Amino acid sequence: PFFADTNAGGIGVAHNGNLTNAYGLRQDLVKSGALFQSTSDTEVIVHLIARSKEEKFEARVVDALKQVEGAYSLVLMTRKKIMGVRDPHGVRPLILGKLNDGYILASESCALDIVGAEYVRDIQPGELITIDEKGMRSSFPFAKKPSRFCIFEYIYFARPDSFMEDKSIYEMRKEIGAELARENPVEGADLIVPVPDSGVPAAIGYAQESGVPFELGIIRNHYVGRTFIEPTDKIRNLGVKLKHNSNRKLLAGKNVVLVDDSIVRGTTSKKIVEMVRDAGAKEVHMRISSPPSKHSCFYGIDTPEDSELLAHNHSPEEIADIIKADSVSYISLDGLYRAVGQARRNSDDPQYCDACFSGEYPIFLTDREEKHDKMKISRLKEASK
Amino acid sequence: PFFADTNAGGIGVAHNGNLTNAYGLRQDLVKSGALFQSTSDTEVIVHLIARSKEEKFEARVVDALKQVEGAYSLVLMTRKKIMGVRDPHGVRPLILGKLNDGYILASESCALDIVGAEYVRDIQPGELITIDEKGMRSSFPFAKKPSRFCIFEYIYFARPDSFMEDKSIYEMRKEIGAELARENPVEGADLIVPVPDSGVPAAIGYAQESGVPFELGIIRNHYVGRTFIEPTDKIRNLGVKLKHNSNRKLLAGKNVVLVDDSIVRGTTSKKIVEMVRDAGAKEVHMRISSPPSKHSCFYGIDTPEDSELLAHNHSPEEIADIIKADSVSYISLDGLYRAVGQARRNSDDPQYCDACFSGEYPIFLTDREEKHDKMKISRLKEASK
Amino acid sequence: PFFADTNAGGIGVAHNGNLTNAYGLRQDLVKSGALFQSTSDTEVIVHLIARSKEEKFEARVVDALKQVEGAYSLVLMTRKKIMGVRDPHGVRPLILGKLNDGYILASESCALDIVGAEYVRDIQPGELITIDEKGMRSSFPFAKKPSRFCIFEYIYFARPDSFMEDKSIYEMRKEIGAELARENPVEGADLIVPVPDSGVPAAIGYAQESGVPFELGIIRNHYVGRTFIEPTDKIRNLGVKLKHNSNRKLLAGKNVVLVDDSIVRGTTSKKIVEMVRDAGAKEVHMRISSPPSKHSCFYGIDTPEDSELLAHNHSPEEIADIIKADSVSYISLDGLYRAVGQARRNSDDPQYCDACFSGEYPIFLTDREEKHDKMKISRLKEASK
Amino acid sequence: PFFADTNAGGIGVAHNGNLTNAYGLRQDLVKSGALFQSTSDTEVIVHLIARSKEEKFEARVVDALKQVEGAYSLVLMTRKKIMGVRDPHGVRPLILGKLNDGYILASESCALDIVGAEYVRDIQPGELITIDEKGMRSSFPFAKKPSRFCIFEYIYFARPDSFMEDKSIYEMRKEIGAELARENPVEGADLIVPVPDSGVPAAIGYAQESGVPFELGIIRNHYVGRTFIEPTDKIRNLGVKLKHNSNRKLLAGKNVVLVDDSIVRGTTSKKIVEMVRDAGAKEVHMRISSPPSKHSCFYGIDTPEDSELLAHNHSPEEIADIIKADSVSYISLDGLYRAVGQARRNSDDPQYCDACFSGEYPIFLTDREEKHDKMKISRLKEASK
Repeated sequence: PFFADTNAGGIGVAHNGNLTNAYGLRQDLVKSGALFQSTSDTEVIVHLIARSKEEKFEARVVDALKQVEGAYSLVLMTRKKIMGVRDPHGVRPLILGKLNDGYILASESCALDIVGAEYVRDIQPGELITIDEKGMRSSFPFAKKPSRFCIFEYIYFARPDSFMEDKSIYEMRKEIGAELARENPVEGADLIVPVPDSGVPAAIGYAQESGVPFELGIIRNHYVGRTFIEPTDKIRNLGVKLKHNSNRKLLAGKNVVLVDDSIVRGTTSKKIVEMVRDAGAKEVHMRISSPPSKHSCFYGIDTPEDSELLAHNHSPEEIADIIKADSVSYISLDGLYRAVGQARRNSDDPQYCDACFSGEYPIFLTDREEKHDKMKISRLKEASK
Repeated sequence: PFFADTNAGGIGVAHNGNLTNAYGLRQDLVKSGALFQSTSDTEVIVHLIARSKEEKFEARVVDALKQVEGAYSLVLMTRKKIMGVRDPHGVRPLILGKLNDGYILASESCALDIVGAEYVRDIQPGELITIDEKGMRSSFPFAKKPSRFCIFEYIYFARPDSFMEDKSIYEMRKEIGAELARENPVEGADLIVPVPDSGVPAAIGYAQESGVPFELGIIRNHYVGRTFIEPTDKIRNLGVKLKHNSNRKLLAGKNVVLVDDSIVRGTTSKKIVEMVRDAGAKEVHMRISSPPSKHSCFYGIDTPEDSELLAHNHSPEEIADIIKADSVSYISLDGLYRAVGQARRNSDDPQYCDACFSGEYPIFLTDREEKHDKMKISRLKEASK
Repeated sequence: PFFADTNAGGIGVAHNGNLTNAYGLRQDLVKSGALFQSTSDTEVIVHLIARSKEEKFEARVVDALKQVEGAYSLVLMTRKKIMGVRDPHGVRPLILGKLNDGYILASESCALDIVGAEYVRDIQPGELITIDEKGMRSSFPFAKKPSRFCIFEYIYFARPDSFMEDKSIYEMRKEIGAELARENPVEGADLIVPVPDSGVPAAIGYAQESGVPFELGIIRNHYVGRTFIEPTDKIRNLGVKLKHNSNRKLLAGKNVVLVDDSIVRGTTSKKIVEMVRDAGAKEVHMRISSPPSKHSCFYGIDTPEDSELLAHNHSPEEIADIIKADSVSYISLDGLYRAVGQARRNSDDPQYCDACFSGEYPIFLTDREEKHDKMKISRLKEASK
Repeated sequence: PFFADTNAGGIGVAHNGNLTNAYGLRQDLVKSGALFQSTSDTEVIVHLIARSKEEKFEARVVDALKQVEGAYSLVLMTRKKIMGVRDPHGVRPLILGKLNDGYILASESCALDIVGAEYVRDIQPGELITIDEKGMRSSFPFAKKPSRFCIFEYIYFARPDSFMEDKSIYEMRKEIGAELARENPVEGADLIVPVPDSGVPAAIGYAQESGVPFELGIIRNHYVGRTFIEPTDKIRNLGVKLKHNSNRKLLAGKNVVLVDDSIVRGTTSKKIVEMVRDAGAKEVHMRISSPPSKHSCFYGIDTPEDSELLAHNHSPEEIADIIKADSVSYISLDGLYRAVGQARRNSDDPQYCDACFSGEYPIFLTDREEKHDKMKISRLKEASK
């Protein structure tokens, strides 16, 4: 969260997402005398609110957000009210909950379960909710845009015990796994093994659809992450086994289907495949519950640049060679849309943001087009005159 | 581990297990002038080694261990050698591994995988292994006793990626789950849901045997355990949801079979059942992959006293009432023995230590019979004359 | 120090002093859209620099400082230069040192000794020094004002091993003590005892002037401040002895003159007098090496409000009653000026800032006159519209 | 403190001093089966108490202490009593205090002042005090030996606000300083400057006796020791100025007498003299309020080996050359005895332990004579058979 004392009073802002024109806005703000004490794009939003000529707080927020581009779900707090707002495309999630007389804004419904609150509804794309002593009000202050909820939330990002758009994330992942099994069966498979923990729901779906047994062939080492003893470099070099270990007796001599949610750089996949082979697996087939990750996300998911994405430059066959798997295959983009309940992807106006797979960015990437390097955002690194 | 400077040189000892005559030995040692700086029974062993009249280190260790009763697997280290030894009944595990030219002693084979070492074999009950610059030697210095490996290692204690007695722990747990399904089926069941993480392998076995789908109806909240922010009491009182959350959409209206490894005090089980009911489950049946836990372990597993064990005083039907489940049932003792590969439990000379279920303690509980209260072990609490 | 990214590039600022119109400036800045992320007046200065219409950095700094009132010595740093500046009255100190080819700016000369640097000179009131790769430049950009160096630096604030205005702080304190002895002798005194550590130099001066022996009748407990064990409340209530202890054998039956630099609220003085009496002193006379502290400082010394200053409402006789001393007396204002080398205080145009004694504030207290409560500086506490 | 559970019940022991036959006793104890978990000689005492054949606790303690040699003041605690005991020579101090109904044992009287307790008396050499619910009892269980209180407590070790043997430490130090002035005056001296903080009382005594002004020519930097920021090596190399700084204006052109309590290795003295010369002093004379430190202490004061003591191999003239002082002189041994109230040192049977100056060790140094290297005390470093 970000706090500041402004012309609109004291404000706290929490931000899920990423602005695509933050650098340019920041340059303009700095030129007109604004101070920046961080490199966060949230600070840009607060400056725009502070400088708005509008009088009322909601109007200031709307005024500020009309200047920004990008994907954002924001929660703002003043001394007397809280506000929640989602960008017009609704890329990032935001939900409304209720506990006794109070309202709760959160990214995911599982947060409500933890505190025993009740889910009310999703905030809509472009909707602004204000909650104060008079109650809750909703408005749609922005020009309407087509909905583009992030489809990667269904694949990986959201927690499996949440639901979004009235759909259970766990069920969606099982559906995706089932569709993956229909599209990419493995002949003679003995076991369906998830890469823990994120691959589990899709692997259950794949196993149920294919009739091949679901088995925990890879065990996650829960101890490692919990220790306060920082492993030394030497221990780190022992590799991925600090995080995962294979279930040797189970895998030996088997035709194994590994199910994972995505392949990013391929480093982990390669180690996992090697570990399964070392355990004696006869064949190792990798099945991925997303289309190939070919493009960077500029809307709030932390991903490497295009050039570092293995699928950006390599076909599934090449990837299989690189990670030493007998085969690698992905769910198709249409298959993914089917799994989440669409007849197929509407290529003229896709129902979701799938830019990381399709390269079709629904929100213009202003900073990127103007070749602003994120690394240069801090003028602290520039010389003064 | 425990370190001390002794007549036999400097010694380090690591101990898995529990002595059953430690209090009496300690009393005798203290009477003859020994100092105790901890309440650990390991310190008793070190004192016995230090006071042995034998000259050679191995002979001292054997001399000391002939005086102790209980379940123990020990690793001892001097400046020039390491030794591993298992008690004559072999209650606790101890394995030998190899990495390059070096030997490794560990409780479980999964420890070898982490460092990339090779499993050689289990140390045998009553076996003493010495490793020094001359290599590795084995001896059996104690009177032979019937093997009584702890059957609870198969149910819960060992890691699923280890193997013991040449059996995969994961496979054993699946077998136990399958046997549980045969003995205690649930009519009209919609889902088999493990209590994470320990109930997962048995639930997979149960699901495969029963043909009812395996589903993650309860999600473990991995964030909580990893945070450095200690939750306040108020947050703690929000209850078990900090650790687990239900998968509401999946459970609503369903006949749910929960699979867990054991019921100890019943507190967690009660919360889990309540959470599943709150999610809308129509029926909730609890199936336990062990016989009822009726007796305390005195051989190294940390369990509450008999009186605090729910099954010590209650039938499965009463337990179902207490935890608000539609039914509770357990695998039978014979069923458990079948699952781990025996025809049935040999009641005259059981193949495993199953004292926590049967109450038949294979090693005499000297301290307990002499009514030594563990709490009184520290004479620091007694008055001096 | 305060860092920010601004239109003038990245800036770091360290500030010794206090602005007297910060609240008003901050209000104006906030109204025009500035964000404040702290309650420090330094942030006001950085905003003014950022918003200046001037182009060159020095010109921006001068532009900003022409808008502020108060007492300040500033060190500013950009990527390419450092600058030092003192307010036109020169209330707070700032000195220039040299180490090899580099210049050093610091508040006191003792800082130079620590790093082995050489003292060059004091920065002058109203002087601005710029140091960059081209060397060092000096300018006097502000309207000339009468010098008003803080006389309390000589009494208490500066370190005794520093010198200011070419005068040794230690020598000045001894002179003040000697003048105090001439003005306020104690008949039949046996010992001159400093309240450690700040009263030591004045006590030495008093002893030398009066011919009465200087003795360490109060020992400072150096251990307490250094321990990592936080004393509990119960221990705190044991009182001032954690900080000081009396030298019982020395004080018993004696006529003791305690020398301290000032009496603020009187709490510590009362405990010290009580401790000396408990040690058996026959008489306890308190001599103070400053005039009565009657007024708050608004120029950078942290003092309580007028109403909490014991001398604001009480005569020396009343104070003696309150702290249970046989007598309390202070150096006179003219005596203080004599001790620091003036013939007498020039009442039309005093040579130093002595507002804390005289109530004559040389710089207008704008925020105070406009009744801006410092506590309200954070608009975070105000409601938003 | 050291805690253990023993045949005599639980014991806690705090030890001021050092045993001279600990190594030999430890060897014997280890041979008979004792475990050592530290390298402290206190552990030896506890073992001897635990192994005593006596029944009552006091008798056990006496039995144990009859076997040890060395200088010790001990406080022992059981569940029901506390005991205090001083070795027969009374080398180290131990005092008795009272607070309400309770007794307090401490090394120095200043500890009583901190908690507001009353000083009762010194524990006598060879005295054993027992305090329990029945009150306080005293006995003298050891063969009577001549008193040999550590004279270095008066010079440096005790706190100036304590008293011992009914003498004020502060007064004794002033007396020593006065005697030093009589024995070693400095012609034409301008200033008497203490090396802070330990040299202050002796310097006051020297100044009063000589009539030369006492001045704080060296300022101790209190900030450094209190910071949590660990100085880097580079900063450390800046030298002693992190601890001390000179008062330049005061010292310039002066004939300065520095008073310090002792010269150990000479490193600090050399830096101090250099610093005073850098400040412009014309002459620098070092006067030491103890005789030359020529011999290691084996009775509880942490000192380097003989060969590292500057005075072990060098005359005062040579030392003056080494530390670059104009002269160095020490108080004589007889002068020291006079200052603490004796007519002169009784060379047949000295009134104090002055081994560090005279080399006459009143208690036999058994371990040293048998060439036991302290470094070898841990058998952990030896090979086992």
